[in-house]
Amino acid sequence: MKSFVEVPANSDFPIQNLPYGVFSTCDNPTHRIGVAIGEHILDLSAVDESVWAGIDSSLPAAFKQPVLNYFMSMGRSVWSAVRKTLQQDLLAEGSQEKVSSFLIPQSTAKMHMPAKIGDYTDFYSSIHHATNVGIMFRGKENALMPNWTHIPVGYHGRASSVVVSGTPLHRPKGQKKPEDGPPTYGPCRLMDFELETAFFVGKGNDLGDSVNVNDTGDHIFGMVLMNDWSARDIQKWEYVPLGPFLGKNFGTTISPWVVTMEAMEQFIVPNMEMKNPILDYLTMNKDYNFDLNLAVSIKGENQSEYNQVGTSNFKYMYWTIAQQLAHHTANGCNSQPGDLYGSGTISGPEQGEYGSMLELSWKGTRTVKVGDEERKFIKDGDSVLISGFCERDGVRIGFGACEGTILPSK
Amino acid sequence: MKSFVEVPANSDFPIQNLPYGVFSTCDNPTHRIGVAIGEHILDLSAVDESVWAGIDSSLPAAFKQPVLNYFMSMGRSVWSAVRKTLQQDLLAEGSQEKVSSFLIPQSTAKMHMPAKIGDYTDFYSSIHHATNVGIMFRGKENALMPNWTHIPVGYHGRASSVVVSGTPLHRPKGQKKPEDGPPTYGPCRLMDFELETAFFVGKGNDLGDSVNVNDTGDHIFGMVLMNDWSARDIQKWEYVPLGPFLGKNFGTTISPWVVTMEAMEQFIVPNMEMKNPILDYLTMNKDYNFDLNLAVSIKGENQSEYNQVGTSNFKYMYWTIAQQLAHHTANGCNSQPGDLYGSGTISGPEQGEYGSMLELSWKGTRTVKVGDEERKFIKDGDSVLISGFCERDGVRIGFGACEGTILPSK
Repeated sequence: MKSFVEVPANSDFPIQNLPYGVFSTCDNPTHRIGVAIGEHILDLSAVDESVWAGIDSSLPAAFKQPVLNYFMSMGRSVWSAVRKTLQQDLLAEGSQEKVSSFLIPQSTAKMHMPAKIGDYTDFYSSIHHATNVGIMFRGKENALMPNWTHIPVGYHGRASSVVVSGTPLHRPKGQKKPEDGPPTYGPCRLMDFELETAFFVGKGNDLGDSVNVNDTGDHIFGMVLMNDWSARDIQKWEYVPLGPFLGKNFGTTISPWVVTMEAMEQFIVPNMEMKNPILDYLTMNKDYNFDLNLAVSIKGENQSEYNQVGTSNFKYMYWTIAQQLAHHTANGCNSQPGDLYGSGTISGPEQGEYGSMLELSWKGTRTVKVGDEERKFIKDGDSVLISGFCERDGVRIGFGACEGTILPSK
Repeated sequence: MKSFVEVPANSDFPIQNLPYGVFSTCDNPTHRIGVAIGEHILDLSAVDESVWAGIDSSLPAAFKQPVLNYFMSMGRSVWSAVRKTLQQDLLAEGSQEKVSSFLIPQSTAKMHMPAKIGDYTDFYSSIHHATNVGIMFRGKENALMPNWTHIPVGYHGRASSVVVSGTPLHRPKGQKKPEDGPPTYGPCRLMDFELETAFFVGKGNDLGDSVNVNDTGDHIFGMVLMNDWSARDIQKWEYVPLGPFLGKNFGTTISPWVVTMEAMEQFIVPNMEMKNPILDYLTMNKDYNFDLNLAVSIKGENQSEYNQVGTSNFKYMYWTIAQQLAHHTANGCNSQPGDLYGSGTISGPEQGEYGSMLELSWKGTRTVKVGDEERKFIKDGDSVLISGFCERDGVRIGFGACEGTILPSK
């Protein structure tokens, strides 16, 4: 399969990917929907409407929305038909004349939030991360809580402060508790990233209904990279007994391109083996884990290049995203198109595969090399870049950048 | 102050109240904004636009919205001017001719969600409730967590499943852990209500900014009653370490009429005394606590009347809503018009003043009289009604009903 659009070697966006995003340009500030191909964006809002007529009559309207929610709500058969039309017609070899005038260089486009997020949930589904954090805070004996291997543990996060890659964030201030004195208020001292992915809900489910763990096709639209910025000192003092709150909700960064599940399904690997029997409503009858290579890099204020500080892989997820969604709706909780569900920090088994500074610096007890500098946590002016790609049988698809800079406290 | 509209004695909605809501009628299914007066609703979307001209030119558009968010975003000076116009002009004695044709009997109207809730947060700010729960689960010595008297502890809840009074909910199913065996999945056995209030955010604050604890006038629009339905068995097994999740997010019920802070400020009482010094960003320079009488009643499936099972009062809140909002934004977390922030269960010091079955039945160790029946927790077919009113100097304002019925699991 090849596109008439030139796709550089190692591009994140070959014709096998085709992620969706929302963009604008200087000469047209309207937020509109496009699909990434090589170093270009095909402006789907501009494509001749007759192209979509055979699929669904509301597609032209969906592509003119300033967010993907409407398209997300249309379900797998529509997404699949659009993908086929893109791959076999619009972007195929020989289609220059049809769409060349709707191709926009990514370098001239500004990316925006891909969806209006109704609710944002963050899971905690990497066993290596949960074990590492458990060892640090509760000791080796009690590292994993008793519920962890039975439940895809998760919590509600803050939707309003999810921002798109490239949005700088101020270091949060907050209440912290020194070991030897009363609480204080001031800038976070233990600023951290969390290397995550997240999925967007496609079709929702009504209040009172549940999504079946083996029938999530219409309900999971696609995935993005996510940096779940964390203020460890604020989090530590606040989180018992009701969970993380201000230690997280000052900002969460996602990548702008939503990689569809159809693209991801080219890279399925076996689910992780369960450590104990799990309940029927969580039991998968197929593999839905992905070989997605992840990396996180830091660039200090006075550095010119990013320095990789860790790698990981989505395949280390103990719970699949299908199990996460089935659990989330097992009590009848409704979901809506555009809801965002995070993976939780994804750490691998080795020290170089940890997905947070908390783990990489082991609670600040060792330093992490960042080029010619060192870090235990994130400094003002630091930029953090999360990247990810899948590769198999000569096909490589990527997620683009999930990047953010920490500015000094206001 | 008196209205030309007849207001029955003990009505929740005299001219001193004037809460806002969203309603529709059989002959006009458009969701539109109205204000409650006696047993009527004044349809603000129908009032002659010239009435609002002197206040803000976008008011007519605001009142034609299907939710209050736009009006909420306009800030205190606009809300105040509208209230003055309603009290001194439109609803005053002698104004029959101007607005009589826009008065709709509440009995013919259907009430809807008053706002599109962006984010929903629930606090945990009643010291008696936090102490009761602490004693039950951690013993008397460790009843209050060390952070509780320093932080208005809260957590993010689920916005999608907040429903308006009158919406029935199915008993949630979920994962529970019997003491003596592996986890099971099935209908919740320990179904509970939580007697709460909640406030709606008015003007929001930008990401990175904070709301000053003594300058919340533009930022808090008004209050509603709330039933934070809770599945205690699901909650117990899931909530460590990331907080309540499926034990709560199957449904949360609010009353449809939003009582403005201007109405509430007629009933201010002293803030609770802090048990230890608190940080500057939480220090109030004025009283912002309210003498709001609360009650909760249950009606079994075969009962014809509600039976009061407990009373409480908003004045038992340890943290004010101003402190809650200041804390929520202290790290730069942005808020938006229509965000909903719950009080947490409000319990008083006495046994009859507990705001949940968990406390009233003391974890199921004693029965609670419900008319000629008994309960430890909520049964299928039970309806729960929360009501509330303020009274001072011959003025009484109320909140209307916050009501919901638990149907059997699906």
